[in-house]
Amino acid sequence: MTTTDTIPHWLTKRAHLTPNRVAIVFEGDEITFQQLKEKSLEKAYLLASLGVREGSHVAVLSQNSLEFTYILHGLTYLGAIAVPLNTRLTKQEISYQINDAECLHFIYEDSFKEFAERVKQDCLIVRSASFAQLNELEPLKHGTKEELKLQDTSTIIYTSGTTGFPKGVVLTYGNHWWSAIGSALNLGIGERDKWSASLPLFHVGGLAILVRSLVYGMTVHLHRKFDAEEVHHEIMHKGVTMVSVVSVMLDKLLTLQGEDRYPDSFRCMLLGGGPAPRPLLQRAKERHVPVFQTYGMTETASQIVTLSAEDTLRKLGSAGKPLFQAQIKIVSDEREAAPEEVGEIHVKGPSVTSGYFKQWQANNDKFQDGWLATGDLGYLDEDGYLYVLDRRSDLIISGGENVYPAEIESTLNAHPAVRESGVIGVPHEEWGQVPVAFIVVDQVITEEELLEFSIERLAKYKVPHAIHTIQSLPRNASNKLVRRELVHLWEERK
Amino acid sequence: MTTTDTIPHWLTKRAHLTPNRVAIVFEGDEITFQQLKEKSLEKAYLLASLGVREGSHVAVLSQNSLEFTYILHGLTYLGAIAVPLNTRLTKQEISYQINDAECLHFIYEDSFKEFAERVKQDCLIVRSASFAQLNELEPLKHGTKEELKLQDTSTIIYTSGTTGFPKGVVLTYGNHWWSAIGSALNLGIGERDKWSASLPLFHVGGLAILVRSLVYGMTVHLHRKFDAEEVHHEIMHKGVTMVSVVSVMLDKLLTLQGEDRYPDSFRCMLLGGGPAPRPLLQRAKERHVPVFQTYGMTETASQIVTLSAEDTLRKLGSAGKPLFQAQIKIVSDEREAAPEEVGEIHVKGPSVTSGYFKQWQANNDKFQDGWLATGDLGYLDEDGYLYVLDRRSDLIISGGENVYPAEIESTLNAHPAVRESGVIGVPHEEWGQVPVAFIVVDQVITEEELLEFSIERLAKYKVPHAIHTIQSLPRNASNKLVRRELVHLWEERK
Repeated sequence: MTTTDTIPHWLTKRAHLTPNRVAIVFEGDEITFQQLKEKSLEKAYLLASLGVREGSHVAVLSQNSLEFTYILHGLTYLGAIAVPLNTRLTKQEISYQINDAECLHFIYEDSFKEFAERVKQDCLIVRSASFAQLNELEPLKHGTKEELKLQDTSTIIYTSGTTGFPKGVVLTYGNHWWSAIGSALNLGIGERDKWSASLPLFHVGGLAILVRSLVYGMTVHLHRKFDAEEVHHEIMHKGVTMVSVVSVMLDKLLTLQGEDRYPDSFRCMLLGGGPAPRPLLQRAKERHVPVFQTYGMTETASQIVTLSAEDTLRKLGSAGKPLFQAQIKIVSDEREAAPEEVGEIHVKGPSVTSGYFKQWQANNDKFQDGWLATGDLGYLDEDGYLYVLDRRSDLIISGGENVYPAEIESTLNAHPAVRESGVIGVPHEEWGQVPVAFIVVDQVITEEELLEFSIERLAKYKVPHAIHTIQSLPRNASNKLVRRELVHLWEERK
Repeated sequence: MTTTDTIPHWLTKRAHLTPNRVAIVFEGDEITFQQLKEKSLEKAYLLASLGVREGSHVAVLSQNSLEFTYILHGLTYLGAIAVPLNTRLTKQEISYQINDAECLHFIYEDSFKEFAERVKQDCLIVRSASFAQLNELEPLKHGTKEELKLQDTSTIIYTSGTTGFPKGVVLTYGNHWWSAIGSALNLGIGERDKWSASLPLFHVGGLAILVRSLVYGMTVHLHRKFDAEEVHHEIMHKGVTMVSVVSVMLDKLLTLQGEDRYPDSFRCMLLGGGPAPRPLLQRAKERHVPVFQTYGMTETASQIVTLSAEDTLRKLGSAGKPLFQAQIKIVSDEREAAPEEVGEIHVKGPSVTSGYFKQWQANNDKFQDGWLATGDLGYLDEDGYLYVLDRRSDLIISGGENVYPAEIESTLNAHPAVRESGVIGVPHEEWGQVPVAFIVVDQVITEEELLEFSIERLAKYKVPHAIHTIQSLPRNASNKLVRRELVHLWEERK
């Protein structure tokens, strides 16, 4: 009897189908799928030499680079699980994730060497190596995977937590596969497609582009970080047809566009990472830029709801309809909401995570009959288009990065002088939102002291832009913090 | 926890995503996806009224028509299993399949009414209805499926058997789904694609086009039967971009093409149903017709290996490389063959059937570790391209229809005058191959008498084009029929 959950290893398969097609363009280098396979297998043998085996959890800290892609693919050849780390996090944050994910191996780009040494002091790491150190090992010709089982775990990616600590989202090969297929069924697959990837590969939005590249046989233009001029140049002169962006990136691209009009072959500006400001969408429309708004999260292995370009203005502000394999429903008062009625967005489908790593409580609370309660608020219109109102009530999205107030509050509360704190997101012209904190103190402390304390412990985008000392936090009858009162306070003070 | 094996009902989903897009064009009618959904749901209620329920096996006998598609989709809404029947079969053949598949319900096009009445006399049918009779029932508002589970059985389709009787290939929703996805990853998905379907829907090659239509959101130009002029017209003037054909159809299209050149938007002539003659491929090349040769069978839910147009002449005669989700290997002497070495073709992947209905022995013999031994002979070249030498050793392919000698022989042997028989396929200009029989008799019988006997029991394409009486059948030391000796005999006599 056959199994419907097994496919050939996707990179080996792709290299077999189109060996000489360019897989990745990066800083002037071009790598074919055959080369990508060979390089990734080399890394697999080096990782095996470091002790990485099937089922090993391996933390990887790197900005976008070819080496990073080889290592990510190399881990799949061993059946090891990648835990890609956000390079903007502090030592404390990184250590927390490495320990929580039970990583015994740690691989990092050489520029993070000193930082990694400090991280390791707090972690249960057995073996670690910088990229250069890894390459100096004697390769171990360990067996590599010829097939992938869709139910096997591929990656654990951390998301900011609603309860103070980030949670590791477990994504299987099947989740990534279905995400790529759903996107293809929505956007189509063209033989000449080239996808520009400036989103970090440690986020699912970036990683998903690498998977699509293998599944579709599509060239990826990879960037260390977003550079509007480079991306603009690729669109105008290098045949790039698809670009993944967050609002702040789209804004820069439109500003740079000037009188240029993108070639007709350019067919998709995939806009994710939070709600898009309407004026931005209007500008894109005026510039004939086909924007596809999306709704997605790490838990859904990137986009799960996408608005087609033809609907962009007709359904302005909507995230669109769920991808072919996906379902959404709005739940209000424990029943399915009527059209136009606001409730919590629930999602279901084979690209949705089966749960958070070791978070039994959260898994129990948030999953039911295959449906994930996202915590986000929204509604469906009469035609079934999704409108997202609030990303998980108090979630702050700053430049495409997610951060929950709870995580910042628990850091501030850890300072001896702070009795309690409340954090909200406030509008910011460049980043969309930034966090602002309100504290109640036991001892006098200056804003500078507390900021310094925060900077050591929190990624820069999580550090409050202002910290206000107040007499007491606004709480409701059941003693829960009422954040909207803090918003009023902030509006009065600004 | 979520399930990766559940998707929304594919027609409901498609109707939600693109309600107003044309799903099917048939004899001047245009049906949108929304209409297709509504019509299919209507049929579901009518079928429910007839007693069809989840898990029911329902025989359907029809030429291609809109009604046929509504019924096929309607059955999926009930979770019932369609057993589509080849309209060219005789009463005996049809009865055998209905009984073997344990169908208690039988639906047929009105033109088959009289035939169906005779069929029913030999079958355990509980309820039956012609299309018109079905439409006269009071609809029963039975619950319908909102989701499809990929492991659930969708269809049972019969293939000619190597041992005298046809076998029912069990195909799940997952098999059909993966087949559609694999085809998309190979051929791409274009927003303007339109697929012309003249292959019968009771064969997997036709049925697969209906599934692709839902999954891609693609218009199908459906035909009752192949008409070269109609298809030519669609390609030239109706924006048809893909056509599924067997050799005999391609030959007619090329003849008709004359000085016309297909529009540039025409991008795929998908050629299946057996090996293609080289001169035909050469002619197609000269006419700039992009032919994609394929290898596939009912057991693989249509194509599983496809040659890209760019390789057609470079790898002339090859069926190509296995689709993204599929694997093939050549087995010789119970080990994997080297490149260029001939052996039996084995296939694996999520589009491959999990087995034949109730054929425990065949399932045990032909499946191992997820690999299906096809019985076909072939080899892989150094680049991994498949060359099919013989379709399952003695399989005869006549105009795209498969027929095994064993099936014809067992019919001939059933005649009192015939002691034993041997059947081979011989070349035929129009149909590719036709069967020819050699018999050893106990009593004198004329060729005409025996042909008449055959015509009652065998579909026309299975009836021998000639029957030769000989003294004894050529057998080897272990007393097995040596068919190649019959080929020599035939060559001497022609």
